[in-house]
Amino acid sequence: MAYAQSLRDQFLHNLRRIYDGEQRLEKALPKLRDAAASDELKQAFQVHFEETEVHLDRLANVFTAFGEKVKGTTCDAIKGILDDGKDVVRLDAEPDIKDAALIAAAQEAEHFEIAMYGTLRTWAVVLGNNEAVQNLEVTLEEEKNTDTVLTGIAATLNLRAAHAD
Amino acid sequence: MAYAQSLRDQFLHNLRRIYDGEQRLEKALPKLRDAAASDELKQAFQVHFEETEVHLDRLANVFTAFGEKVKGTTCDAIKGILDDGKDVVRLDAEPDIKDAALIAAAQEAEHFEIAMYGTLRTWAVVLGNNEAVQNLEVTLEEEKNTDTVLTGIAATLNLRAAHAD
Repeated sequence: MAYAQSLRDQFLHNLRRIYDGEQRLEKALPKLRDAAASDELKQAFQVHFEETEVHLDRLANVFTAFGEKVKGTTCDAIKGILDDGKDVVRLDAEPDIKDAALIAAAQEAEHFEIAMYGTLRTWAVVLGNNEAVQNLEVTLEEEKNTDTVLTGIAATLNLRAAHAD
Repeated sequence: MAYAQSLRDQFLHNLRRIYDGEQRLEKALPKLRDAAASDELKQAFQVHFEETEVHLDRLANVFTAFGEKVKGTTCDAIKGILDDGKDVVRLDAEPDIKDAALIAAAQEAEHFEIAMYGTLRTWAVVLGNNEAVQNLEVTLEEEKNTDTVLTGIAATLNLRAAHAD
C-alpha cells in the first residue's frame, strides 16, 4: 500500500505518471501521423508530437522546481488508452472513417491529459511553487488547443465519413 | 485486424467500449465513495453512482435506436484508469490528502468519458439518429456537471490538504 505523507507526495506521484504517459504518447504520435490519410490530420499529429517533446522538457523543469530528480512511474491509464488506440491504428477502413476514428482516439488521450495537468497545476498553486505552475499551465493550454484543432478537423471529416460506406 | 465498413461500425465499436467502461465505473464508484472521508465527497460519488446506472440505461436506448443488441467490449482505457484509481483507494494518507487524490482520480475518468461521449454524440448527429443524439447529449452534460461539482469540492479541500503534512 502506497503512503502519501503530504499533498506534495501525491503531486510527485501524479507527476511521475504523466511523465511516463507523455513518453508513451511521444512514441505513439508518429504512428497516428503515419496512419492518418488527410494531410491536415497528419500535420496536426506531427505538430502535437513536437509539442509532446517540449511537454517532457517542461515536466523535467517541474521535477527540478520541486528539487526532485526526473523519474516516470507506469501510467496504466495512458497505457490502456494507447492499447485501444493501437486497434484504431491497425483498423482496416475507408480513409475518412479511419481518420475520424484516429481523431476520436487522440481526443481520448487529450482529455485524459487535460484532467491530469489540471490537477497538477491546481496542486502546484496550493503548494506555492510558481515555477511549476507556469510550466504546467503552458502545457495545459497546448493540450486544450490540440483538442480544439482536432475537433475542427473532425467537423468536415465526420460528414464525409458518414457517407463513405 | 478489425474492419470498419462504415462510420456506423466504428460508432458501435466505441458504444460497446463505453458500455463496458460504464459497467466498470458502476462497480468502482461505491469503492471511491467508501474511501472518501468528507461527507460532501461521499455524497458526490453516491450521486454519480446513481447517475451511472441511468447512463447504462441510456446507452441501452442508443443500441436499440440503432437496431443493435446491447453488448460491451473491453475498454482498456477505462480499465487502465481504474487500475490507477485502485492505488488511490488503497492509499494510506491523511483524510484531506486522500480525498484530494480521490477527486483527481475521478476527474481522470470523467474527462475521458467526456471525450468518448462527445465523439459518440457528434457521430450520432452525422449519422442522423436523433434518439441516440438525445440520449448521449443528456449523459454528456451529466458527466461535465460531475466534473464541475468535483472541482468545486476540491477547491477548499486542496487548500486544507496542502497544509495537512
